[in-house]
Amino acid sequence: PRRIEWSAVAAEKDGHKHFMHKEIWEQPRAVADTIRGRASLEQGDVTLDGMELPEDYAKGLERIVIVACGTSWHAGLSGRLMIETLARVPVEVELASEFRNRDPLVSEKVMCIAISQSGETADTLAAVKIAKARGAKAFSICNVVGSAISRECDGGTLFTRAGPEIGVASTKAFTTQLCGLYLLAVKLGRLRGALTAEKAREHLEALRLVPGWMESMIRQEAALMPIAKRCAAARDVLFLGRGGQFPVALEGALKLKEISYIHAEGYAAGEMKHGPIALIDEQMPVVVLATREPAYEKTLGNMEEVRARGGHVFAVVSEGDTHAASLAEVALTVPPAPPLLVPLLSIIPLQFLAYHVADLKGTDVDQPRNLAKSVTVE
Amino acid sequence: PRRIEWSAVAAEKDGHKHFMHKEIWEQPRAVADTIRGRASLEQGDVTLDGMELPEDYAKGLERIVIVACGTSWHAGLSGRLMIETLARVPVEVELASEFRNRDPLVSEKVMCIAISQSGETADTLAAVKIAKARGAKAFSICNVVGSAISRECDGGTLFTRAGPEIGVASTKAFTTQLCGLYLLAVKLGRLRGALTAEKAREHLEALRLVPGWMESMIRQEAALMPIAKRCAAARDVLFLGRGGQFPVALEGALKLKEISYIHAEGYAAGEMKHGPIALIDEQMPVVVLATREPAYEKTLGNMEEVRARGGHVFAVVSEGDTHAASLAEVALTVPPAPPLLVPLLSIIPLQFLAYHVADLKGTDVDQPRNLAKSVTVE
Repeated sequence: PRRIEWSAVAAEKDGHKHFMHKEIWEQPRAVADTIRGRASLEQGDVTLDGMELPEDYAKGLERIVIVACGTSWHAGLSGRLMIETLARVPVEVELASEFRNRDPLVSEKVMCIAISQSGETADTLAAVKIAKARGAKAFSICNVVGSAISRECDGGTLFTRAGPEIGVASTKAFTTQLCGLYLLAVKLGRLRGALTAEKAREHLEALRLVPGWMESMIRQEAALMPIAKRCAAARDVLFLGRGGQFPVALEGALKLKEISYIHAEGYAAGEMKHGPIALIDEQMPVVVLATREPAYEKTLGNMEEVRARGGHVFAVVSEGDTHAASLAEVALTVPPAPPLLVPLLSIIPLQFLAYHVADLKGTDVDQPRNLAKSVTVE
Repeated sequence: PRRIEWSAVAAEKDGHKHFMHKEIWEQPRAVADTIRGRASLEQGDVTLDGMELPEDYAKGLERIVIVACGTSWHAGLSGRLMIETLARVPVEVELASEFRNRDPLVSEKVMCIAISQSGETADTLAAVKIAKARGAKAFSICNVVGSAISRECDGGTLFTRAGPEIGVASTKAFTTQLCGLYLLAVKLGRLRGALTAEKAREHLEALRLVPGWMESMIRQEAALMPIAKRCAAARDVLFLGRGGQFPVALEGALKLKEISYIHAEGYAAGEMKHGPIALIDEQMPVVVLATREPAYEKTLGNMEEVRARGGHVFAVVSEGDTHAASLAEVALTVPPAPPLLVPLLSIIPLQFLAYHVADLKGTDVDQPRNLAKSVTVE
């Protein structure tokens, strides 16, 4: 029976050495599945079955509060920029464990959005209950149908269609959460009158291109092996990003921390001079998200500062940006997606980086020490 | 002439080996100076000369946005809890470098508060200009009179009275910023009708006790030498805090990073299970802020989890809490201050910790590598 079990597991891995690797590769399909039937290019609008979002409710919103933990919290930070940009309503992103333990200012004019892959995260569930008790309508973005959080949300749930995620380090759940947040941002933008059908159509057309762009990121897997080797030999790695790439830096650092036990830390690039620059020396690999975005020339300045101090710079840059690439020892490239969609692409090399560093170090990639897939205790 | 210069500097250090040490010791006086003439116990109110805060303006506020960098950003995170609790208005705390580079949602019903010791921080100054251009009235908390940020703020500035801060790692500027934010929170609470004179009086009476409580923290300096020795031998240190102590954890980690070049990282205690717990082994000192606050029993649970994985736990606990103390190898104690004021006390042992670790390692405490006192370039 043992042999049969093993074969069964191997089959599920579909030829991949680990579930995490398989799940990174599944992202184009998972995102395409999450978009399907929801984005209407003809109407320039989004259909979210199961979400109760009347126009007057959306127009009357004063604020949105996103509650989440871990990787889902990083998705929330990206979602904030999407929603503020496309729907023009202030968004606050809170760690669920912090939100639930203070006395949060929430009213019926606040929309609460919980994000959780499993839909069972204890702190996030508790945060939803608190927001509801104070009059907010609660919505969620979950991957598991019928989960506790989705059942608790009176406003409804946008289910991501990532399929089962087995690796403890979340990958395809994260990118489908970003996709869900983008759909929701376009929907809210339409409802609130912040986006014309024409504009919404452009945003949805770009979203439909994401799976193809993701394939081009996956094809670069081999190119990051030199970075993986350097990081596998390091004890500490810094990830820097600015604006839309700041949450990606946080998420890239968390992946590496979770499965390779390297002390990786993500930082807003603009904060580098206020502290982390003191850490930088020849031992310190620095991964910089330097795609072309507002103020990205300042991020290039950060890369030069790291180099001047002997640090090793690896970068993710926009396709064709040879100047940015020339500032890094190794640079991977992102296709010309609109800035709000770049996180769905730029995270992929960082997922691969964490995976290959862990694999080189021989840690248990799919079941890292001390970690559980879903944190269902408080 | 060289000898005279040296003597002059030694005299300024007032018998302390470094400016940073002197400045940690100066905190009780700096806070007392910052309170003086502003807290009226008789009237149960706060007088903030130079701040233009009409009652109808304060009552009409929809939101407050705090913009800052580095240590001042940590003060802002603490200030958020003070203002939301005492004045019941939603507060958002933003890294100035992030705020200025996106398209922030700000209107005339939003109060902008900039925090900067020098008043010259380039990103913070730029953030103030953007907030003003979108209709917000701008206020600031600065230590240097006549500084660029204070001149830019049309709403006025609350000047902390920390005196000149020479050490690059900010200490007394931080605690006086917290004191200023507390005064402002009480003032806004009175103006908005969220605090009665009676309640305000209680809060101000507690604030007046802070300098004395700080003295009791300073007297514990020698007790943390065993922690300093352990951390000086470590490459990585984790700082955990929850609620009001989360910003203290971030600030404690930043101090250590800045002057000892140890990779210290601060984390919300509730997030430990979502990642950083994977890092914990026998090599990893963990500093836990475990004073009695909402949900602090969960923080005790975090301490037990660290111990179960062989990590070394050092803690800051409430005076008389022998149970919490028993979970740590070494515990320092905080007098029975109200939770909103505990950060002004619990940060002191973390400042001493960073100082002594750096001194043991022989780094340049007052002039750490790569760092400038004020980041006046972008």
